[in-house]
Amino acid sequence: MSQASSTWILAAQCPSRLGTVDVVTRFLKENRCYITEQQSFDDRLSERFFIRTEFRPLDDDFSAETFQAAFAERADEFAMAFELTPPGRRVPVVIMVSKADHCLNDLLYRYRTGQLPIEIRAIVSNHPDLAPLAEWHDIPYHHFPITPETKAEQEAQVWEVIESSGVELVILARYMQVLSSDLCTKLSGRAINIHHSLLPGFKGAKPYHQAYDKGVKLVGATAHYINDDLDEGPIITQGVEPVGHADYPEDLVAKGRDIECLTLARAVALHVERRVFLHARRTVVFDR
Amino acid sequence: MSQASSTWILAAQCPSRLGTVDVVTRFLKENRCYITEQQSFDDRLSERFFIRTEFRPLDDDFSAETFQAAFAERADEFAMAFELTPPGRRVPVVIMVSKADHCLNDLLYRYRTGQLPIEIRAIVSNHPDLAPLAEWHDIPYHHFPITPETKAEQEAQVWEVIESSGVELVILARYMQVLSSDLCTKLSGRAINIHHSLLPGFKGAKPYHQAYDKGVKLVGATAHYINDDLDEGPIITQGVEPVGHADYPEDLVAKGRDIECLTLARAVALHVERRVFLHARRTVVFDR
Amino acid sequence: MSQASSTWILAAQCPSRLGTVDVVTRFLKENRCYITEQQSFDDRLSERFFIRTEFRPLDDDFSAETFQAAFAERADEFAMAFELTPPGRRVPVVIMVSKADHCLNDLLYRYRTGQLPIEIRAIVSNHPDLAPLAEWHDIPYHHFPITPETKAEQEAQVWEVIESSGVELVILARYMQVLSSDLCTKLSGRAINIHHSLLPGFKGAKPYHQAYDKGVKLVGATAHYINDDLDEGPIITQGVEPVGHADYPEDLVAKGRDIECLTLARAVALHVERRVFLHARRTVVFDR
Amino acid sequence: MSQASSTWILAAQCPSRLGTVDVVTRFLKENRCYITEQQSFDDRLSERFFIRTEFRPLDDDFSAETFQAAFAERADEFAMAFELTPPGRRVPVVIMVSKADHCLNDLLYRYRTGQLPIEIRAIVSNHPDLAPLAEWHDIPYHHFPITPETKAEQEAQVWEVIESSGVELVILARYMQVLSSDLCTKLSGRAINIHHSLLPGFKGAKPYHQAYDKGVKLVGATAHYINDDLDEGPIITQGVEPVGHADYPEDLVAKGRDIECLTLARAVALHVERRVFLHARRTVVFDR
Repeated sequence: MSQASSTWILAAQCPSRLGTVDVVTRFLKENRCYITEQQSFDDRLSERFFIRTEFRPLDDDFSAETFQAAFAERADEFAMAFELTPPGRRVPVVIMVSKADHCLNDLLYRYRTGQLPIEIRAIVSNHPDLAPLAEWHDIPYHHFPITPETKAEQEAQVWEVIESSGVELVILARYMQVLSSDLCTKLSGRAINIHHSLLPGFKGAKPYHQAYDKGVKLVGATAHYINDDLDEGPIITQGVEPVGHADYPEDLVAKGRDIECLTLARAVALHVERRVFLHARRTVVFDR
Repeated sequence: MSQASSTWILAAQCPSRLGTVDVVTRFLKENRCYITEQQSFDDRLSERFFIRTEFRPLDDDFSAETFQAAFAERADEFAMAFELTPPGRRVPVVIMVSKADHCLNDLLYRYRTGQLPIEIRAIVSNHPDLAPLAEWHDIPYHHFPITPETKAEQEAQVWEVIESSGVELVILARYMQVLSSDLCTKLSGRAINIHHSLLPGFKGAKPYHQAYDKGVKLVGATAHYINDDLDEGPIITQGVEPVGHADYPEDLVAKGRDIECLTLARAVALHVERRVFLHARRTVVFDR
Repeated sequence: MSQASSTWILAAQCPSRLGTVDVVTRFLKENRCYITEQQSFDDRLSERFFIRTEFRPLDDDFSAETFQAAFAERADEFAMAFELTPPGRRVPVVIMVSKADHCLNDLLYRYRTGQLPIEIRAIVSNHPDLAPLAEWHDIPYHHFPITPETKAEQEAQVWEVIESSGVELVILARYMQVLSSDLCTKLSGRAINIHHSLLPGFKGAKPYHQAYDKGVKLVGATAHYINDDLDEGPIITQGVEPVGHADYPEDLVAKGRDIECLTLARAVALHVERRVFLHARRTVVFDR
Repeated sequence: MSQASSTWILAAQCPSRLGTVDVVTRFLKENRCYITEQQSFDDRLSERFFIRTEFRPLDDDFSAETFQAAFAERADEFAMAFELTPPGRRVPVVIMVSKADHCLNDLLYRYRTGQLPIEIRAIVSNHPDLAPLAEWHDIPYHHFPITPETKAEQEAQVWEVIESSGVELVILARYMQVLSSDLCTKLSGRAINIHHSLLPGFKGAKPYHQAYDKGVKLVGATAHYINDDLDEGPIITQGVEPVGHADYPEDLVAKGRDIECLTLARAVALHVERRVFLHARRTVVFDR
């Protein structure tokens, strides 16, 4: 987004209380930060407040450290968690895949052309197939095969890559293995998965075959954060595609690829632009 | 649709076999019936053939009886079930409702203006609320209250109306009662229900509240034929609507109304234009 | 929308300048107004600032008059124009129609059921056809026939109804007459028209026939404010519908009705919820 | 599509006349060709008939040459033009680009993975930028710079590539030069262009900037055949994307990329699957 390239982002959430907007906007004004776009929402059911602000410092000597230290004091009073993101920041990520390459290919294109402000530190797979794609983009590719017996060991290898590469976000771009509860918990809230159905419909394996059997007229894709319950994590965004009687299961698989790519890329963009707020089992998404 | 007003429709299905298209098209040619639109599909998994043809007889002395009698002989060889529909035919229907009026209001408008070629013989409800709407459109309104104790009796009253009014189709336009298995079976394949979710997600009661709890980003509606299993009948069409974090359950209810109306009206239109073919638990829909 | 029923709305715009957000949010905080939802946008090309806030006064003795008087002083410094809207307010409107009833019927339903917070003071038409519909809803219907010779006179009658009924908004729900430049200017920014094409494509008469001739695969509808240039006023929202080769012009007319209704109703909802800001030839729309 | 891989396609068109369907279906039956899917349409305004059939020969000794020779005799009587396409055929194409790589990248991915049954014989550009992309996919890349003075010469080079590579289809994947009337005429009906607007809105240069100036709420893309009139050729398919006030022209450019890719890829798929019929200035598209 054009503005994002020159503006800072302040994202925050805290319990509902009078003055939550004011504590943010007054501070920005006092520090000569010019707000270009702002959205806030106070959820009356969970009694939680969310705010996202894009701003441009008017003074040349703006310091993120000073800003953060000073704002932290005020935020404390509201038990407000906040995050300040500088313009042009690229979020470091690891991408996990199996054999299907469509989502990876799509993410790599958006990464290579700068459309998606991420920095891909590594690609991890349980198969060797997509190594050439990684190589052409000059990204380390880790092939960690998995069997029922070696699952714990393999996940330890995966975790080692995630930890050592210092990434903020893990993207499961059609990684076809069920993660252990332990790894799910470790990645909770910082891993995005794409599931190829309109959750909660057709959880689990082979959702397009389930969709064919049920005879639905719409298929879709769901991008969600990982938590400790399979295909049950908080939803970020969903996409949909009409289908018909002439679409056999293999046609649904083929037709679904585009919407999977778009939905995952959209979720990653929303995440890295700090548009997604996670609270309990739900997300607040300040979309454009 | 403009063509429908001047063309006959021949809809047929039978087991897959060489010559299924030819038996239809050759007969039409020989009987000087001019085909304006035709679609056929041979389902390789269920081994079943479906065809829909719109045609215009070129001769003035075209007789439906003669056509049917003569075609029946050829169709017999293929175990082909067929239905011939004259131009401008209005399908007789009964509409069932509870208190929500949006789908009924929408159907009544399309009926009154001739957009939907149906003839509404009666409206049946377990509440008196929508009687004035029926009255303004000059349609008999039957108020049959229901309690757990009187359910069998009430369904007998409903059935009596359906039977006595000679209708072909029952439309459940947000009728909020679960039909007994017996009535479901009687209405199997000739009653269309609108369920306010993207089935198979959120079956049963209060689907918008379920959708809110799950935090989905898309809600929808599903129009399907009734069979003997709640919310599990063959799907005709589905519609979808984006929602967000600021939509509380009551907002989802409000937002969903339009897509419920459109999805139900579309399903009824597809049915009365003979575009829907039912086989086992699936539909073939020759849409435009 | 659920929140709207219990919250006040403050909508404002002014030239871009540091402190535009703060002047609003600080005042709300000081006056113990609890913000439930807020959106702001600062347009760097037109150098104009827009803000919309939903809030709930925490004190029982909240007075709109006091609020407005006090806030006006601060707004003045920013040359800020603002509008305060109480919960549950119904905007008084006049609807203008010709013979086509679909948009009127749709608006009347949403009005009758309270889905659209408007109060329809009168319906004006150049034809008598839709009088029964108005009558059933108990709304005054003015039939003012028009000919090239009587146009000025007819528009004077129309204007008299608009003025005397004290309405804020005029809705042209398929009123098929071109308004004079004079009336357009008088209604500038406070009349919403629905044009049955995706403007700027297919301006002027018979857009569906133009669309057929061009062979487009999508048709649509555009809701826009009236200004002094035919079909050129600021766009509020647009809707779209896929079409195909089998849709003759009369089919496009039929298919387009739903999207016209939905697009117009949506524009009116956005307007009355104070989500639309008009500046020069463009709109800022803070949608949900 | 799954069926396409094992079925032949017969596509035909001719003037309207009784027996047009029968001449096709009777021949297929007599030659023991099993029809799996068929669509036909008789356009009453242009008095032209179109039919598309997918079939599977039941006999092992099926010969395309024999089929074509025999069917040609019958087709002659109806002045019917037809085309027989074997299963798995890859249509040879040339792709033309300038500097923008998104559509090319998308087509290359679908080509590489076999999703799009094309064989890319060459890529032609007026800039050298996309040569590495072509190289990775092992496709000849011709860089033919263009200036106002060398336009005729450059187009001769382009034409030489098209002719010598024996391609059936030219894909203009964001080739930003206006072709000469001469080249347009040569390519008439066998070159597909993607224009980044919802034609007929925003013809010519910089459509997203035009869209911004107009303040539209939907942008889109149009895939159409080239004819001798700029941006006026017969439309194959169109795609649409919602936008808002916060989208500056450069955001529209960014947001439009996905819908351009999808719309162009869809048009190419429809073309190579013989689903598009061209007649006068319109297309008939037998979509799934």
